[in-house]
Amino acid sequence: MNKIDDSAHRYVHGYSEREIERLVDQATTLTDLLHSDTRYPAGVSVLEAGCGVGAQTVTLVENSPEAHFTCVDISNRSLQRAKARVEATRHRNATFQQGDIFNLPFPDNHFDHAFVCFVLEHLEKPVKALCRLKSKLRPGGTITVIEGDHGSTYFYPGSTEAWQTIQCLIDLQARIGGNALIGRQLFPLLTKAGYRTPSVSPRMVYVDASRPDYVDGFTKNTFIAMVEAVGGDAIKAGLINASTWDKGIKGLKRTTEGDGTFCYTFFKGTGTN
Amino acid sequence: MNKIDDSAHRYVHGYSEREIERLVDQATTLTDLLHSDTRYPAGVSVLEAGCGVGAQTVTLVENSPEAHFTCVDISNRSLQRAKARVEATRHRNATFQQGDIFNLPFPDNHFDHAFVCFVLEHLEKPVKALCRLKSKLRPGGTITVIEGDHGSTYFYPGSTEAWQTIQCLIDLQARIGGNALIGRQLFPLLTKAGYRTPSVSPRMVYVDASRPDYVDGFTKNTFIAMVEAVGGDAIKAGLINASTWDKGIKGLKRTTEGDGTFCYTFFKGTGTN
Repeated sequence: MNKIDDSAHRYVHGYSEREIERLVDQATTLTDLLHSDTRYPAGVSVLEAGCGVGAQTVTLVENSPEAHFTCVDISNRSLQRAKARVEATRHRNATFQQGDIFNLPFPDNHFDHAFVCFVLEHLEKPVKALCRLKSKLRPGGTITVIEGDHGSTYFYPGSTEAWQTIQCLIDLQARIGGNALIGRQLFPLLTKAGYRTPSVSPRMVYVDASRPDYVDGFTKNTFIAMVEAVGGDAIKAGLINASTWDKGIKGLKRTTEGDGTFCYTFFKGTGTN
Repeated sequence: MNKIDDSAHRYVHGYSEREIERLVDQATTLTDLLHSDTRYPAGVSVLEAGCGVGAQTVTLVENSPEAHFTCVDISNRSLQRAKARVEATRHRNATFQQGDIFNLPFPDNHFDHAFVCFVLEHLEKPVKALCRLKSKLRPGGTITVIEGDHGSTYFYPGSTEAWQTIQCLIDLQARIGGNALIGRQLFPLLTKAGYRTPSVSPRMVYVDASRPDYVDGFTKNTFIAMVEAVGGDAIKAGLINASTWDKGIKGLKRTTEGDGTFCYTFFKGTGTN
């Protein structure tokens, strides 16, 4: 749900300070769900492609303190953020390098593993990106891919306008070549890119009033914040009018009350070179 | 996804032989996902309300061989099926009794626990049903509720017509007073019925070509079979035309090919009296 695409920094969520806060809120709340089963052994080299502001990087270095991470992003500004974030931890097992996922500045067969989180959704050619990453992996090396899927969202109470605001985000992302419904496609994408034994598991976030940390950390500060941030663009693009937008955001917020529920699913896939 | 409602056997899926096969296919594929964490200790009494043809009952008696189950259904014909199905196992810890969930033939505070699976979705007044069940529980007794949610369905490749066939099932169920989107509502329903410490967990079924048992047992023989079975009713009711219906079913079947994926989520809730 973050990261930029390959075409000159067109990133649907923008680069504001609030967006950076949102990415960190998201990463904190979702750490166990998304990362707990990714641990790299001592001495291996891992390419994190599209590290953005380092929201996932801090978890990677923490969970695999004896692996070495090479973190790449197309945005130098994001890379500096990522670097500062990791430097604020006690870990020194990551290096940062500016680069394009389609033209990676490394020789072939260079890395033991690759890790890509919330990147493919922003790319026009995700299979091509997976192929390029594959070429940088040694034989037997693995890739781990994590993506969201905005079409996996549903909630109670229902609201047509709330769903329309989500559709705006899906449409805006499609207009700049992305795919906000990519989670459900990880299996065929990994297969098409030629990875062996692809395996995908859903990571569903279910939120109700008995989980107040998720009501705040996920529904409000991650999901609704992400949708709200594209309101201006959606109205400007003529995808929705301001009054429907406001009703929709109210509808989303309504799901955070005591009798509301909210569902969203991330997908995590792995494959072997 | 089975069971009848309280108003004289209006059951959206019908009572055909194929439907009975479907219910058993469904129960077999989903047994671990839905039931593995329900084990009742020796000596306790459990009310299974709306046991239908016993698709879940065989798992209950198998997983808790020293508990005693009282299985109730409004349909005597279904009850006979359920009884025969349990008699075909080595277990003798279930008795069967015809009865209405809104007018249960037992004194108050009679059971240690209650179990309800794929029943509330067919009832016009699910909170009332939960209250009636609560009155039959001893203080401290628990209820376990399992329901599907057809609105949780999404798949790849996408197909508008495929989604329309699912919407037909949702609409038909609503017309006879049911709610095919009830899974996401278990938390507020249990809360409204006065259960203490309600807790709900999603049970997501994710299907791709690496899980051929789920492609057959769930996507084809459970979900698509369930949708296909209401085709005649949906067309007769004017909800869809025959050609769109056929395209939709083809779209659903397309998701079972090598590059397809299919997602559906059940919800399991518990609460204490």
